[in-house]
Amino acid sequence: MFGLIGNMKAVAGQREALLAILMENVGGMPGCLSYVVAEDPRDPDGVWISEAWDSADSHKASLSIPAVRDAVERARPLIAGFGQYIETRPVGGHGLKARA
Amino acid sequence: MFGLIGNMKAVAGQREALLAILMENVGGMPGCLSYVVAEDPRDPDGVWISEAWDSADSHKASLSIPAVRDAVERARPLIAGFGQYIETRPVGGHGLKARA
Repeated sequence: MFGLIGNMKAVAGQREALLAILMENVGGMPGCLSYVVAEDPRDPDGVWISEAWDSADSHKASLSIPAVRDAVERARPLIAGFGQYIETRPVGGHGLKARA
Repeated sequence: MFGLIGNMKAVAGQREALLAILMENVGGMPGCLSYVVAEDPRDPDGVWISEAWDSADSHKASLSIPAVRDAVERARPLIAGFGQYIETRPVGGHGLKARA
């Protein structure tokens, strides 16, 4: 498996709009086992994303899905900057689920 | 929802044993929506955990479940130290699933 943990900062006042875009395609990405979008409770503009994929290739391929590319384009102006970007290698757990 | 992202370092050579203990109870914790255990690909002793719960209370209550307390006791000597501990507020995504 391939995992990502990352955080970003929304443009002031745009976190809710950014979160909505980030969640648009979460059910439809082949190979995506988990994709959890979260607010940072200590930063009104902070966002955390935790992802698990069956492979790094599936994650990479997701970035070419038209709906995802479209979402990325719309999200871009709402992002003020990126923070941590951590690649992981998930080994198991609860909530890892391929799309139906 | 309540979320946690954290990392820890296993005692040298004990990561696999630690991961096995961490995954023992993942399916049986009330209110746990996601619990993904991962290796740090860049640190042979590094572990990342990403959790989502329906509430902070459910997370806290899980620490009193006998099987979880037992696992924590057995995991303790395999842990060399803790790194980042990030509380989040998940808002949605894919793979958030209450136990059956």
